[in-house]
Amino acid sequence: MPEKVTLVVFSGEMDKVLAAFNIAIGAASMGMEVSMFFTFWGLNIIKKNEGSIKSRGIMRKMLNIMNRGGSHRLPLSRFHMFGLGKWMMSKLMRDAKFPTVDELIATAKEAGVKFIACTNTIGVMGLSKDAFIPEVDSFGGVATYLAEAKEGRVNLFV
Amino acid sequence: MPEKVTLVVFSGEMDKVLAAFNIAIGAASMGMEVSMFFTFWGLNIIKKNEGSIKSRGIMRKMLNIMNRGGSHRLPLSRFHMFGLGKWMMSKLMRDAKFPTVDELIATAKEAGVKFIACTNTIGVMGLSKDAFIPEVDSFGGVATYLAEAKEGRVNLFV
Amino acid sequence: MPEKVTLVVFSGEMDKVLAAFNIAIGAASMGMEVSMFFTFWGLNIIKKNEGSIKSRGIMRKMLNIMNRGGSHRLPLSRFHMFGLGKWMMSKLMRDAKFPTVDELIATAKEAGVKFIACTNTIGVMGLSKDAFIPEVDSFGGVATYLAEAKEGRVNLFV
Repeated sequence: MPEKVTLVVFSGEMDKVLAAFNIAIGAASMGMEVSMFFTFWGLNIIKKNEGSIKSRGIMRKMLNIMNRGGSHRLPLSRFHMFGLGKWMMSKLMRDAKFPTVDELIATAKEAGVKFIACTNTIGVMGLSKDAFIPEVDSFGGVATYLAEAKEGRVNLFV
Repeated sequence: MPEKVTLVVFSGEMDKVLAAFNIAIGAASMGMEVSMFFTFWGLNIIKKNEGSIKSRGIMRKMLNIMNRGGSHRLPLSRFHMFGLGKWMMSKLMRDAKFPTVDELIATAKEAGVKFIACTNTIGVMGLSKDAFIPEVDSFGGVATYLAEAKEGRVNLFV
Repeated sequence: MPEKVTLVVFSGEMDKVLAAFNIAIGAASMGMEVSMFFTFWGLNIIKKNEGSIKSRGIMRKMLNIMNRGGSHRLPLSRFHMFGLGKWMMSKLMRDAKFPTVDELIATAKEAGVKFIACTNTIGVMGLSKDAFIPEVDSFGGVATYLAEAKEGRVNLFV
């Protein structure tokens, strides 16, 4: 039976996202079974980059404009500087042949990492399932997470 | 013997707090034994909302004014916008019938979640035990935490 | 066989660093085997305080000026206020006889805590190994981390 790894991806900041995917892909390529639970700002990583995010009510619409998300729109947790810091970091990563978030998503899926989107946050933010990329395997709540985590050898909150 | 879950609640931001309580309550309602260790800014969650925070020395007094805390005063980690973002998020949560922090605290206690407040931080911040809500089960340091965490199936740092 | 504890230290903020070291030192002094994996902003903790950080290319040089790091230069995650909040917190810690980051590093090493610096981030940021303090035991990637974490009783991401 393969060893399990679970990651709660709460943060939607590019630097934390890179750390989470590195661990996920590393573990999957070592034969471990990996699940990533995207919740709160972490849902931004798995939102579609194209089109607009639909939601009902003026406040939800405002929230979903401010918090548009999508793998191309993730800020840095430090030195974001209205995008300049992020642009620099992205360039340094390209120079160092470090993969982009999109490439990390693709590699994670190839390696068999499961993507689960948190239904609780989706409800509060008024999002619908078609706001998300097709790489998402399933939608679930905290019970889904805990069922996996209690069998996990490594469980992290990022 | 019930499976254990431990959460170090370091952060005092409302969004992270919601995630921590969701996991804690979910786990307790699945029959797991849950301990939440409130440390640093996380202590703000379990401070009384009423009255003033007493402490000795001008700098501690300043810190405890800036960092007043209490479940009604937790900022958001993103889009706080001097309270506007938080007000919006609170309204969206009410619309979605999502519980408030106070309701989460009450539900967690009913479900048997243990609240432990970190004595180290309390010392540095010059707080006294009566700054905290009566739902706190005990006060302890890192040894208390580790004694539980090393038996934990799921240990998270939030 | 001693129980293992692993900490991914992603954050370079003084408050989170204190929490991480407290757990590490606590665990080591209880006879547990502790490894700290410093990655991303967490690398700042284990950079030398003296001298300048050498790197190639104008953007890396800029990044390494902004993100100079070193145990004496860690900001607070809240109330940093251009250094005022940090200065206050440092003073409160001294008053409460709480150790400084440098003392925590020394105590952790005496207690046998292993320091591992993340080679992936070092590559992206264009750092060389001599930017780091001699207390670093080794340099490694995600496979090194996972090999330890999967045997860990307590694995945290800070």
